[in-house]
Amino acid sequence: MSPKITTELLKQLRQVMKSPKYVQEPVQAYIVPSGDAHQSEYIAPCDCRRAFISGFDGSAGTAIVTEQHAAMWTDGRYFLQAAHQMDNNWTLMKMGLKDTPTQEDWLVSVLPEGSKVGVDPFIIPADQWKRMSKALRSAGHDLVPVKENLIDTIWTDCPQRPCKPLITLDLSYTGVSWRDKIVALRSKMAERKVLWFVVTALDEVAWLFNLRGSDVEYNPVFFAYAVIGMNTIRLFIDGDRMMDPAVREHLQLDSTLEPEFKIQVMPYGSILSELQAVGAGLSPKEKVWLSDKASYALTEAIPKVYRYLTPYTPICIAKAVKNASETEGMRRAHIKDAVALCELFNWLEKEVPKGTVTEIIAADKAEEFRSQQKDFVELSFATISSTGPNGAIIHYKPVPETNRTLSVNEIYLLDSGAQYKDGTTDVTRTMHFGTPSAYEKECFTYVLKGHIAVSAAIFPNGTKGHLLDSFARSALWDCGLDYLHGTGHGVGSFLNVHEGPCGISYKTFADEPLEAGMIVSDEPGYYEDGSFGIRIENVVLVIPAETKYNFKSRGSLTFEPLTLVPIQTKMIDVNLLTQKECNWVNDYHQKCREVIGAELERQGRHEALRWLIQETEPLIRVQ
Amino acid sequence: MSPKITTELLKQLRQVMKSPKYVQEPVQAYIVPSGDAHQSEYIAPCDCRRAFISGFDGSAGTAIVTEQHAAMWTDGRYFLQAAHQMDNNWTLMKMGLKDTPTQEDWLVSVLPEGSKVGVDPFIIPADQWKRMSKALRSAGHDLVPVKENLIDTIWTDCPQRPCKPLITLDLSYTGVSWRDKIVALRSKMAERKVLWFVVTALDEVAWLFNLRGSDVEYNPVFFAYAVIGMNTIRLFIDGDRMMDPAVREHLQLDSTLEPEFKIQVMPYGSILSELQAVGAGLSPKEKVWLSDKASYALTEAIPKVYRYLTPYTPICIAKAVKNASETEGMRRAHIKDAVALCELFNWLEKEVPKGTVTEIIAADKAEEFRSQQKDFVELSFATISSTGPNGAIIHYKPVPETNRTLSVNEIYLLDSGAQYKDGTTDVTRTMHFGTPSAYEKECFTYVLKGHIAVSAAIFPNGTKGHLLDSFARSALWDCGLDYLHGTGHGVGSFLNVHEGPCGISYKTFADEPLEAGMIVSDEPGYYEDGSFGIRIENVVLVIPAETKYNFKSRGSLTFEPLTLVPIQTKMIDVNLLTQKECNWVNDYHQKCREVIGAELERQGRHEALRWLIQETEPLIRVQ
Repeated sequence: MSPKITTELLKQLRQVMKSPKYVQEPVQAYIVPSGDAHQSEYIAPCDCRRAFISGFDGSAGTAIVTEQHAAMWTDGRYFLQAAHQMDNNWTLMKMGLKDTPTQEDWLVSVLPEGSKVGVDPFIIPADQWKRMSKALRSAGHDLVPVKENLIDTIWTDCPQRPCKPLITLDLSYTGVSWRDKIVALRSKMAERKVLWFVVTALDEVAWLFNLRGSDVEYNPVFFAYAVIGMNTIRLFIDGDRMMDPAVREHLQLDSTLEPEFKIQVMPYGSILSELQAVGAGLSPKEKVWLSDKASYALTEAIPKVYRYLTPYTPICIAKAVKNASETEGMRRAHIKDAVALCELFNWLEKEVPKGTVTEIIAADKAEEFRSQQKDFVELSFATISSTGPNGAIIHYKPVPETNRTLSVNEIYLLDSGAQYKDGTTDVTRTMHFGTPSAYEKECFTYVLKGHIAVSAAIFPNGTKGHLLDSFARSALWDCGLDYLHGTGHGVGSFLNVHEGPCGISYKTFADEPLEAGMIVSDEPGYYEDGSFGIRIENVVLVIPAETKYNFKSRGSLTFEPLTLVPIQTKMIDVNLLTQKECNWVNDYHQKCREVIGAELERQGRHEALRWLIQETEPLIRVQ
Repeated sequence: MSPKITTELLKQLRQVMKSPKYVQEPVQAYIVPSGDAHQSEYIAPCDCRRAFISGFDGSAGTAIVTEQHAAMWTDGRYFLQAAHQMDNNWTLMKMGLKDTPTQEDWLVSVLPEGSKVGVDPFIIPADQWKRMSKALRSAGHDLVPVKENLIDTIWTDCPQRPCKPLITLDLSYTGVSWRDKIVALRSKMAERKVLWFVVTALDEVAWLFNLRGSDVEYNPVFFAYAVIGMNTIRLFIDGDRMMDPAVREHLQLDSTLEPEFKIQVMPYGSILSELQAVGAGLSPKEKVWLSDKASYALTEAIPKVYRYLTPYTPICIAKAVKNASETEGMRRAHIKDAVALCELFNWLEKEVPKGTVTEIIAADKAEEFRSQQKDFVELSFATISSTGPNGAIIHYKPVPETNRTLSVNEIYLLDSGAQYKDGTTDVTRTMHFGTPSAYEKECFTYVLKGHIAVSAAIFPNGTKGHLLDSFARSALWDCGLDYLHGTGHGVGSFLNVHEGPCGISYKTFADEPLEAGMIVSDEPGYYEDGSFGIRIENVVLVIPAETKYNFKSRGSLTFEPLTLVPIQTKMIDVNLLTQKECNWVNDYHQKCREVIGAELERQGRHEALRWLIQETEPLIRVQ
């Protein structure tokens, strides 16, 4: 991986930062966040402005360019990658390390007095704007909205914004019609006494209308906004997608409907002016509900006194609690996904010793097996297929320059998943195709103990996910090991593989309490820089638990693994497991054998079935 | 406990809320927080305004009185107590329960449009003012500062503010002189580019000057403020305490000192005008550092652009990390405290069966034994001496109306501690003087497992205490049990028994990372309303841990118990312990026997020594 040469681009950017054609007054700094106008984590190529200007294309990072400097903030997952992808024009700011300045502090330290700092108001979330604006103002600078995106002005070959056909999902997948979702949303709006709700996150628009798209790779979403009133529904969307008869039928665009369920379709680009019109027509005490992560531009469209901002929208929370149809869909998706992985690992066991399988070939093979499964749509994220030292790069993606060949001497880590029409998967397995060292087994076993501690945890109703994070680390901590990422994230139902509002992390972000029906990942790891990476990840469903005393009827919760792929027993040092942990592994493998075995049998995949049976032999612990 | 009749008082308060003598405009609601002008948790009698107006005298609670309503917000520790102490004029707002409105939401729901809500600006912390003011404003109301405290205007027999003599602490206790503490503080100020630092918390003033007082029961502090400049030191303190030759000598008030160490003594009441003068004399970029918990009145004295607010001050953080002299002092204090408790429990074993020992007698006896120890000053909090159902009232304090007799049929919970000149103690033991039931033993053993899980936890440097809270609950959770309080709090060194900035709690308050030298309590519990309470509490010191892989030289931490009092083995169901937990108990008891045994021997307390030896017999676990 050679870095992108950005000298010329930075020169051009610094020119437009001073050009009266684009800015009212010159800006001394320009912020390039990683998101799009919907604050998406995964973005379309036309929105990869930070990657364009810097070369660093990880999923999280913020670039700031001043007349003298160019700096990039990113987190521990991307330190190595960012360092590789950026040239000497850039300074890497390692977030989470003690001596790394915040963006605000850094700006204050490098800017001349009374500077203007520009940012695209559609890209920066309102809460970030507020924080940064305040910090800059108190140091005598100004954060200013620059309407035209300055990266776009120098990005001559910027790709077009995608506008692909939509998929309609019927009740068998969604469990609840879009009409009923609107009714539920309006009842939440009435509870909070708000008159309007602005849907800005792409997955929230998709979930609300039971539609899916493919405008963003890996995320089955489409570019749209919605504004829901107590009697109106406005959908802002471009292209001829609304001409599709299936979509018209699904949204009942041509039916005679009660007026409050009549969807008005409007151009995507008209959201700002429409919202400004809504804002201008409000009377005292009338409120508009927005996420506090919505863009500064849209938030500003509503005068401050009328805004009702919350960290999570009612759609985000409703979407996180999967109903029976969604849960069943997720189960089916995970069974199919496990079939594909059994095929893959069986194939790898045979092929790796020949020395012909590279990380890219393995990733492609995984996709091939997945694509053979019913209702497969696409991958749910870029496959992390990594062997040896590449495994220690937490969000690694193999490219020709880094592509290593799998061997019987190195650990192989595969973190991959897919979008099926009935659900989204995300699974990590760490394998050795030769003989692992005692140290590798020791580390793997600690990670496994952490995985089990979370998966088998019982906790009272109302517990937030971050309270479980240390369970995943305890066994590693006892030996002086740790990992620098969270333990789990919410997973969508044929939607984004990362979704809020719940998660399991040492970072005390404002997570919502876990409740039955939520789906999260459980993925502790251990990484040895330059040597190997280990991660064991299942997607797990929050379910009611049965306990002896049941928390005085407060009720309790635990997890059920949806992922049913064998955990390589060769990597386990059985003597480090307690009997309870050993039983967990054996019960889990028994379930893999039963459920996935039956499906492999049904699909006539006999060789993979033999592999599954061999891999799910019970562990025996010598007392 | 019969409730306080508050009808007449509330009538008077509602009159002064409208009286032009005290308020510029009538206020429709008046907030009575529990703190004093220093935001202390424990307060002097003259500051117990919330208790005066409501009858509820727990340590935490906020009263709000409107023309129609009187409501009290308090947390789970005090639900029972507050319900007992308040009459029907009051509505109890149980904080932490889902359906309990916040103070802001409640005010908005009951107030007529455009109301004024009054509060004493010296009592409300700036951060609370900000939050409440914003919420009220967005609903069309106003939070207004009422200079004269309205409770004081109707409190005819309000006691005088205490003004007791000071104690000076020499280097053998403090390890660092006040001059060196000022130097360190100024270096932190220089780092953050602030010119002034305002010390508002009483324990921070006491710590900074190596002085102690007794203005507040249980907390060895005195009413004072300090304002530290880069070249000036101003101490705001009343009375003739500065006439004491020992104090003058300690503070070098009569010596020829470099001007930057010359202390200017000023009247306590002049802090506001002096701070306003500081604020008026500032130039751009000059900053004044205050805690964001400082009072609204003092914070407002500094114009907003000059304020530098942080949740924890550098004094708070420095004070939390005990130096070698302080740690040694804490060790000595805990040894003496354990001697007193061995005497007490030995005495109780003999006396309880006679049926003559009440909760109050037991508490008094504990104080008597403690007061026999060297450098004993006073108790560190009101002794929680509770038997049977009283044990389920988490912050119970026996009074004649509730005083139960200890018996061989009920669990006895004693949470007590003392101030010695060399350290502060806080210990809880739960005992049975007859034969505990299987269920009582089961619950006790889960609590013990939680206690051990925290005490023996190993975690990397930089870990925040809240990440350890779930370790204390895991064994209880597995059986569907839990407790509604945090697991630990910081403990001062001959200072407040509760201090920041660290702690172990499921509440994600902004705790600072744990570091070696910090001292916290480890006190999980289990409470069965109307039946019994169990808590096992040690004070523990954060120490470096030795681990196999040492977190890549990041280093790791664990805890060393300073409290060395036997944990009643009769209450333990050994079969519920793992071998590791069993070993922990035996090692702990071995250490109690060695360290406290030697001291009992030295003090010639042979009967208590025999009790200690009998109580520290090793547990044997049947495999």
